[in-house]
Amino acid sequence: MKHFSKEDIKKMSSIFRLNMINSCTGYKSANLIGTQSENGSTNLAVFNSVTHLGSNPPLIGFILRPTTVPRHTYQNMKNNGFFTINHIHKSQIEDAHHTSAKYPEEVSEFDQTYFTEEFKKEIKAPFVKNAPLQMGCSYVNEYYIKENDTLMIVGQIEHLFINDDMLHEDGWVQLDKGGVVTINGLDGYAIPKMIERFPYQRPKN
Amino acid sequence: MKHFSKEDIKKMSSIFRLNMINSCTGYKSANLIGTQSENGSTNLAVFNSVTHLGSNPPLIGFILRPTTVPRHTYQNMKNNGFFTINHIHKSQIEDAHHTSAKYPEEVSEFDQTYFTEEFKKEIKAPFVKNAPLQMGCSYVNEYYIKENDTLMIVGQIEHLFINDDMLHEDGWVQLDKGGVVTINGLDGYAIPKMIERFPYQRPKN
Repeated sequence: MKHFSKEDIKKMSSIFRLNMINSCTGYKSANLIGTQSENGSTNLAVFNSVTHLGSNPPLIGFILRPTTVPRHTYQNMKNNGFFTINHIHKSQIEDAHHTSAKYPEEVSEFDQTYFTEEFKKEIKAPFVKNAPLQMGCSYVNEYYIKENDTLMIVGQIEHLFINDDMLHEDGWVQLDKGGVVTINGLDGYAIPKMIERFPYQRPKN
Repeated sequence: MKHFSKEDIKKMSSIFRLNMINSCTGYKSANLIGTQSENGSTNLAVFNSVTHLGSNPPLIGFILRPTTVPRHTYQNMKNNGFFTINHIHKSQIEDAHHTSAKYPEEVSEFDQTYFTEEFKKEIKAPFVKNAPLQMGCSYVNEYYIKENDTLMIVGQIEHLFINDDMLHEDGWVQLDKGGVVTINGLDGYAIPKMIERFPYQRPKN
């Protein structure tokens, strides 16, 4: 096994460190977050840190670096209180990853990719049309993580849209039935296949 | 597509809601977190919320419900300041998921599964021997998420051990080379296969 201490990590080139530390926590969710500015221009950006925070109320969280790339996402959701989270199908990974390019605010990533905007319900943010799973969310709160100047954004699910094939009778959403991908690091896309689902675990006698 | 509003979600049975909201954010990391109590007894618990927070310093975060299951993990890492994060190989998913059973504090999940403890460096917590990737971490901080009484724990990577096969020349860790699994919801385990890795994206002309 290769071993790296904290001191080794500190001394690495920034690219090597970025790649290694971004990929060493395991597989990540692959989502496109859609927002809309006050003058109506839309924004779409790929995120790999959306996490479940709780079911009742239905809360999600994600990490944002306010000083770098996805700041349009942050400004827009702060201004009108809404954002969408859309899952990425395996056929869309090239376009999905392209939303990480730094476009000026007036350029919509929807115009630079094959993704199509969809507006529905009261959500003032664009969904990605035909995404296998879509969530319309409201901005709830943010927590400043002082250790590295990041924000954890907390959002509430207001509307959830799920492809029929993916939803089981007990509420479980089987992601591989929708061709949903996962992210390995910053730029690797993988397609999972379900192996097994386990029952509730009790201590052995 | 199936549609569920916030009101629909509120009225669901708790099991249906738990399954649906836990699986609707996308694929999650699959990790075993190892800790040790003051009297030396070890603890191992499966987590699906470990997220990358930043590379320099190398910080990770995860969500913890102090009032429910993995409270031994929390007490131990608060007491001695250390914990380990270990990736789960596809051959180990049954034992990994069994660590979610509620054992009393004096029972070690290492004794109830085929996992073997490994102590190394200055980390006062057990690693999972032969895990494809191991991280020895220090407890750094916690943020109380008032919206649903959870904690985000912030940890720093002190030592990182990676199977040789998984590490690329540019620092990227290819998780499928190590047979690492991902979690779909609370109890579904899936095995991803890499599709493509993309270069840094620049705006189109």
